Formats: sequence, C-alpha cells, structure tokens
Amino acid sequence: MANGNDPILLTPGPLTTSLATRQAMLRDWGSWDAAFNAITTSIRKDLLDVVRGEGTHECVPLQGSGTFSVEAALANLVPRDGKVLVPQNGPYCQRIVKILGYLGRAHAAIDMPEDQHPTAAMLEAAFRADPSITHVAQVHLETGVGMLNPLEEIAGACERHGKGLIVDAMSAFGAVQIDLSRTAIDALVAASGKCIEGPPGMGFVIARRTALEKCGGNSHSLAMDLHDQWTYMQRTSQWRFTPPTHVVAALRAALDQFIAEGGTAARGARYRRNCDTLIEGMAALGFKSFLPRSVQAPVIATFHAPADPAYDFKTFYEKVRARGYILYPGKLTQAETFRVGCMGAIDASEMRNVVSAVAGTLKDMGIRHVAPRAAA
Amino acid sequence: MANGNDPILLTPGPLTTSLATRQAMLRDWGSWDAAFNAITTSIRKDLLDVVRGEGTHECVPLQGSGTFSVEAALANLVPRDGKVLVPQNGPYCQRIVKILGYLGRAHAAIDMPEDQHPTAAMLEAAFRADPSITHVAQVHLETGVGMLNPLEEIAGACERHGKGLIVDAMSAFGAVQIDLSRTAIDALVAASGKCIEGPPGMGFVIARRTALEKCGGNSHSLAMDLHDQWTYMQRTSQWRFTPPTHVVAALRAALDQFIAEGGTAARGARYRRNCDTLIEGMAALGFKSFLPRSVQAPVIATFHAPADPAYDFKTFYEKVRARGYILYPGKLTQAETFRVGCMGAIDASEMRNVVSAVAGTLKDMGIRHVAPRAAA
Repeated sequence: MANGNDPILLTPGPLTTSLATRQAMLRDWGSWDAAFNAITTSIRKDLLDVVRGEGTHECVPLQGSGTFSVEAALANLVPRDGKVLVPQNGPYCQRIVKILGYLGRAHAAIDMPEDQHPTAAMLEAAFRADPSITHVAQVHLETGVGMLNPLEEIAGACERHGKGLIVDAMSAFGAVQIDLSRTAIDALVAASGKCIEGPPGMGFVIARRTALEKCGGNSHSLAMDLHDQWTYMQRTSQWRFTPPTHVVAALRAALDQFIAEGGTAARGARYRRNCDTLIEGMAALGFKSFLPRSVQAPVIATFHAPADPAYDFKTFYEKVRARGYILYPGKLTQAETFRVGCMGAIDASEMRNVVSAVAGTLKDMGIRHVAPRAAA
Repeated sequence: MANGNDPILLTPGPLTTSLATRQAMLRDWGSWDAAFNAITTSIRKDLLDVVRGEGTHECVPLQGSGTFSVEAALANLVPRDGKVLVPQNGPYCQRIVKILGYLGRAHAAIDMPEDQHPTAAMLEAAFRADPSITHVAQVHLETGVGMLNPLEEIAGACERHGKGLIVDAMSAFGAVQIDLSRTAIDALVAASGKCIEGPPGMGFVIARRTALEKCGGNSHSLAMDLHDQWTYMQRTSQWRFTPPTHVVAALRAALDQFIAEGGTAARGARYRRNCDTLIEGMAALGFKSFLPRSVQAPVIATFHAPADPAYDFKTFYEKVRARGYILYPGKLTQAETFRVGCMGAIDASEMRNVVSAVAGTLKDMGIRHVAPRAAA
C-alpha cells in the first residue's frame, strides 16, 4: 500500500464506499431548499421500495448512527405500558435490552448462545408463559458474529399471536431479501452506512403507517421523536432539525448505484460471492469459521483466532493493515475471534487479496498452528 | 449561475464550506482504526482550545444534529430532581423548554420579546422568587433573529448564586469569543456545521469535568448518554456507536483552516465585515433590520419584509436563488421577515454580490416600497 493510499475497510460499516458516492459529498446543500427536499423525498421512497413497503409502510429518516434509530423505533412504537420480548443471541440483541432498560419499558429476554438462533416454537412458548408481551424486538443479522436469524419464521409467530415486531435489520437491509408485503413487520431499522453503501451518519425506520399513526406522545425524547419527525416531514418534506446534508446526498448516489446493480438480489449475490471466496481461502490457510455455513450471513465472517502462541490480534491487525486491508476485532466474550467484512464497494478479487495478505502475515509472524486452541 | 453550479448558502448552517473541507470526505475511514481515533482525539482537544477549556472541561462529541447534543447536555447535566430556568427570547430557547418537557425536568421560563435580551437582574429576581432553581439554560446567539445574548453577565449571575449554566452556543462557537477560564459555564453545546465551517452531522458538548463525573445514571437515553460516551471515549479513544466518519474527517480539515485563519478573533472579524457589508447594502436598498446594531450578532441578519404588495417570500427566494444565493425564511411569528446568513466560507464580496442580487430581484418583481408595512 503506497503512502497516502487508503486501506480497504473489511469492517461491518463504515465500509469502503465507491468514489461516485464520496464525490456526491463535494457539494453543499441548503436544508430548506427544494432541491435538497427532493433528495430526501426520493430517498424515503426508494428505501421503502427495497423492502416492498409501498402503500403499507413509511420511511422516516433520523440523524445519528443506526443505534439512534433503533432506540427511536423502540421508544415510539412500543407504548409506555407495552412489554417487549428479545430473543438474544449477540451484542446487538443485548443493546436492544439495554435501550429498553433506559426507556423503562418492561421486557424479557430469551438468552441463547451466539451460534444458535431463535425459533417460532421458542417465541410461542414465551407468549404462552407471559401473555403481557406486546412486542418482539429481533436483530435480523447479528453483526456480532454474522448470524442470520430466521426473520420470516419469527414474523409468522408474531403475526399468529398478534404481537408487534420491531426488527434491527442494520446489516441485512439491501443484502438479504425482506418483503414487507408478505412478512408482517411493524418496524424495520437500518442505516445509511451499511449494505446500501453510503457514508454513516443517518439511520431510518420503515414503520407500518397504522402503527406510526398511533404512536404520538410515546417518545421519551424530542430528538428521537419519530412520530414528530414523520408528521413534520409529511407536511414540509423537510427534516425537523439540521440533516447531515452531505451524507444524505451521498446516500442518494449510493442508492442510484444500488438500483443500477440490480437491487438486493444482485447485491446479496455479490456479497455471497465475497463471503464464499473469503471463507474458502481462509479455510485453505487453516482458519476455522465460527458459524456453520447454514446460518452464515453473507456480510461478515467470524474466524477463530489461531492457537499458535505467536498470534496476537494487535500485531496481526497491523500487519494485515500494512498490506492494505482493515479487519475487525471479534465481539464475542467466550471465544477469541476476529471478523472480516464482506460488504462495501468490493468484489471477490479483494477477498482473494485479503486471504493473500493474511497468508503473508501468518508467515511474517511465524504462526504455524492456524486452527483454534480448543476443538471449538 | 451556470447550470450545474451550486448557489452560495446564506443560511445559518448548513452553510457553504470550503472545497478543502469537502474534499476531506473523499476518503473512507475505519471507525475502529488508530488513524481515525487520532482524528477524534485531536478534534476533541482543538474544540476545547477554541474556548480555553483545557484542564477544567472535556469535549464530548455526539452523532446527530446540534439539537441532539443540546438534549444530551440537558438530560445528563441536570439531575432528575433539578429545576431549569430558561430566559426565553426566541425559537431555540423555546426548543430547550420543549426538550425539558420531554425529559420531565422541572423548569420555568422568563418570556421576553425576540428583540430583547435577559439581564442579570432578571435572573436574580427569578432565583429569589424560586430557590428550587438549580440550573439556567441559555441560548448564546438566538439564530431565530440573530440576537446575541449577554453570556458573561448571565454566567456571572449564575456563579454568584451557585446555579449551573448550560449554554446552547450553536451559532456563536468559533465566531464569538467564549473563555471558559474566566466565564463560569458547566456545559457549552455546538455542532460541526456552524462557525467552524464543517459539514453538519455531529454536535459536541464541552462540559466541566466535575459536572460530567457526577452525571452517570441521569440520561433518559442510551444513544444520548453523554456520560457513557465520555467514559468510553476516554478509555478507548473510540466512539460508542458508529461515528459519521466522513463528517468527522471534514471537521478536522475545517478546524485546520479555522486555526490557520487565526481562530475565533479572525473568524469573528470576517463575519462582522460580512454582516456590516450586508446590512449597509440592504439599508441602502431600503430594507429595515429587525435588530438594533448593538445586539446584532455577526452571524445572521434578519430583515423586515417589504411593505409592497408585489412582495412574496417564495418568489423573492427563488429569484435571488437563480442569481446564485440561497436565503433563509424568517423564524418569527409576529413580524414578516427573512434572514441572510453571514457565516461560512464566504467574504464581504459575496455580501456585495447578494445585495446586488436582491436589488435585481426587487426590480424584477416590481417592488418599490422596500420599507416594512408598519412603523416596526
């Protein structure tokens, strides 16, 4: 990597964006001006189209990181006397539990290991045991390890039992098909800097209109009052408070490229090729994947750290970085791992290159035992 | 204005930034990477230096618009059993009152007209009448009309009576001198997209360390938990949740230019020349300023709408826009006005040009009576 050039981000957002997307940030926009309002309106429509929400749902963008939008969705769509069930298999599920604690909303978790996923039967047992549950909050793609939770199965159970469903689809939106015309979801949350490949800086909630209409007065916060943001935007086509104009303009450019690539099907297929290429290459070096392929989402892969005493993550990270790729630390408590993102404006050739960078690093560090310590 | 060229933003943020600032957004950054962490750390230090807060205060950045940071400052720094006095002379003061309502914090307002400002005597009378007041929340520069409130006088009254002071310095920070080593302020709030001339997308709270240390557990919100953001950042030099990396990098570039220009003194002087040039030019056309010069902040000027029946704001706005300048509507309820920003990467020649664009528009619209309707 020549001096002055930037490494490729193999991280689950922020990720490597295209030059066309970044160049869209070279212009300043007036947040009150009709030209900018038209961008906001078109983004809201196109994000809704990604998940077939036209007619039933509304897209409400919100300033801040994706977590701000997750908190806003929970605070607005769960009434103050509601109770939320959280099937919990990773750090982003834990974050939802933490948010519900801040909000003072009653909640219960079904805890499970990070390599297992919830089932309809689990949810139904919980509904029977506690009829006061009104909502389920589910992470679609647990970025903690890269686990794809079975969204349609969960949505089916919620629908049969009349429970609301709020989905943190942060790392899935745009890469994994979600069809709101066939899957009963009250609110789907994602952000600009994930699989749509925009820069980070705004999130959005795609909420069922009938649920949104009822949620005035629920919010704990002015800044995160989704109902207020929505009604103001409907009336004026403007944001209530200063929007991140450059990020919004770049998201517009990113959406144009997303549509031109062929939408979720094409983007998901590219990420799947990236992920397969990566996992095969890493397996050939001796790395063991944390997840079985059946639940491995095509967005980020988690690998066990090598057993070799010559391995330490910091050195490994820095040497791979010097070869042009930024990896991501593991987010597990129980096993030592690291993560490699497969998302962003990258293709399978980058994945072959990162495997080669990892191979060179192993040699450099004198790591011979690449398989993990235990029979994990 | 040639097709494809952008108009200059004469709006109180987002504003026209320099090309160097926007070009800083052409790079992607890993939010976990040491190179990005170094940017975050240096921005926190340099923002603190702008107001001489080294040693006593801490800069805590937060994702979202400036309002998110105002809400975070109020929610974290005012204990749940505190009571906030709000001297209220404009829409951003009203927003503080609204936030306090959401937070369920006890509060009282001193309401006054938009062209008047609070005094130490007013505050002291309120403190005597209600000893349960623990804090004052004050807007430094009311962007609603461009009023500069007397911050040092207010801080003096708070200090003498042992009241905490939280200042929304959104449009003042970087253009009006604030010296935390001489003025007793618990928290000062501003944002990336104002007088430092970065893009919008993040705010920051400069809080007294001893106040920050005590505020754990106060926050109503995970996303806006300033204490948690601060302690995590101190420990890791990272943001808790995905930062708007491109905005942060551009703010770094904007700060470099701010320092090179000569800091607050030089920037304030440039804005003052912009403002004087504008007001003199507009006065020569017959426009009446809303504020007397003594309280006119050098950031945004408010003008009364012409009395002429041929005037309507929408047409006026569009015709000035076609000549290359984006104005801003008034934010007053009692008088018809419009606003012209004097901030951003612009100088007095832009101000002469906008006066010329306004003159051409008046002629075009057949507006002869430029003075306002009443003897306002």
